[in-house]
Amino acid sequence: MTYCVALALEKGLVFASDTRTNAGVDYVTKVRKLHVFKPAKDRLFVILTAGNLATTQEILNVVERDLREKKARKSLLTCKYMFEAADYLGHVSVDVQKSHDKPLQQSGVDGSATLIIGGQIGDEPPELFHVYPQGNTISATPDTPFFQIGESKYGKPIIDRLVKVDMPLGDAARLVLASLDATIKSNATVAPPYDLAVYPVDSFDLSVDSRIEIDSEFYQNFKTTWQSGMQHAFDNLPKFDWEG
Amino acid sequence: MTYCVALALEKGLVFASDTRTNAGVDYVTKVRKLHVFKPAKDRLFVILTAGNLATTQEILNVVERDLREKKARKSLLTCKYMFEAADYLGHVSVDVQKSHDKPLQQSGVDGSATLIIGGQIGDEPPELFHVYPQGNTISATPDTPFFQIGESKYGKPIIDRLVKVDMPLGDAARLVLASLDATIKSNATVAPPYDLAVYPVDSFDLSVDSRIEIDSEFYQNFKTTWQSGMQHAFDNLPKFDWEG
Repeated sequence: MTYCVALALEKGLVFASDTRTNAGVDYVTKVRKLHVFKPAKDRLFVILTAGNLATTQEILNVVERDLREKKARKSLLTCKYMFEAADYLGHVSVDVQKSHDKPLQQSGVDGSATLIIGGQIGDEPPELFHVYPQGNTISATPDTPFFQIGESKYGKPIIDRLVKVDMPLGDAARLVLASLDATIKSNATVAPPYDLAVYPVDSFDLSVDSRIEIDSEFYQNFKTTWQSGMQHAFDNLPKFDWEG
Repeated sequence: MTYCVALALEKGLVFASDTRTNAGVDYVTKVRKLHVFKPAKDRLFVILTAGNLATTQEILNVVERDLREKKARKSLLTCKYMFEAADYLGHVSVDVQKSHDKPLQQSGVDGSATLIIGGQIGDEPPELFHVYPQGNTISATPDTPFFQIGESKYGKPIIDRLVKVDMPLGDAARLVLASLDATIKSNATVAPPYDLAVYPVDSFDLSVDSRIEIDSEFYQNFKTTWQSGMQHAFDNLPKFDWEG
């Protein structure tokens, strides 16, 4: 399983993912699910991937090939708008899934992939899209400025509770870490290290593109502070009238 | 959908549930999912129900009938141990499901039910069981002293984080409320009011059996204190080295 999350805020975009992949419980490995594409100075894209690993790897390879080979009719270089990039990614995803359709179905294997793509093109504002396995897409809005893919339920309440569209990017990065921390506590198929990327509006560069190891001083400090802060908040909850 | 949760702690058992039921999005109603049975002075049971409402209501009616009619070979009165009560409930559940099997399958309706039963019989210690739709059961242990049924993922991280098998029953009641609060924030099919029951060890009576309305002074205070406590914990998280 996987957990990826991305926020679309006034100050920019924030992306995070775990790195656990498993084909059965006895084949558990580590893989990158956060992928950065910077094909020209006026555009940058981050793609988060969930689902069948063979499918998501082939999707990324096709996206990369379309960028390298000029004969490609469409690519992340030819898109003028973020919705076109998302739509292009959706079509690549559907084509890849279709090409392995029958043997996977015969083996009862789910070959589908769910993606998030965010970024900015030229003078257009940054945008964030959720790409369904069927290839269609929805974009994040100020009312619900985030998307999650993979094992998304455990990490949702903390985002629902604390996300603000005008929050600083540092707070936003802490929020996605807190959401990942809640998820790994409750589900063994999501695991660190985490990949974290931060894109400030109009920068056309990531200000942060880092891997966070669970035994790093920062993350240990983060985890301990968060746990004791939550315990403190819990200890201060109002007493029931039936308590002595 | 539904969310029910129960804790089996050193000091006793705590049960909570929401009250939302829906047969499609245009038929949303309120129903009790926390049911207390006190058939004799030496025994008390609480049953939490999730799944098809017709199935769970019929299960409860059969349990009640078996208590009233002396010809019943088995009932919550004849059980000597909690595992027998859980096993009895599992068999009632399977029988009820089987009796409506074919027409439900033909209509593509899921008629299954998942249950939690906890309580105490005579000199035996209190116990808590999860009853699967297939009728088999597992019991809570000090390592994992809780069960959840229904829409359980949103409310799991806070329990994983804060549950302690020796916690006071008041803290335990606050914990299940915090878990319900996380769930209703993230899922529209789980909703207040909540039912809450507290069973202190060897009391053979509930010390608390109350409905918590969302607009009650207590719950409003609880919600506000919890939200501001979480925000405070979040604001105190360590800064990244890339922050100014």
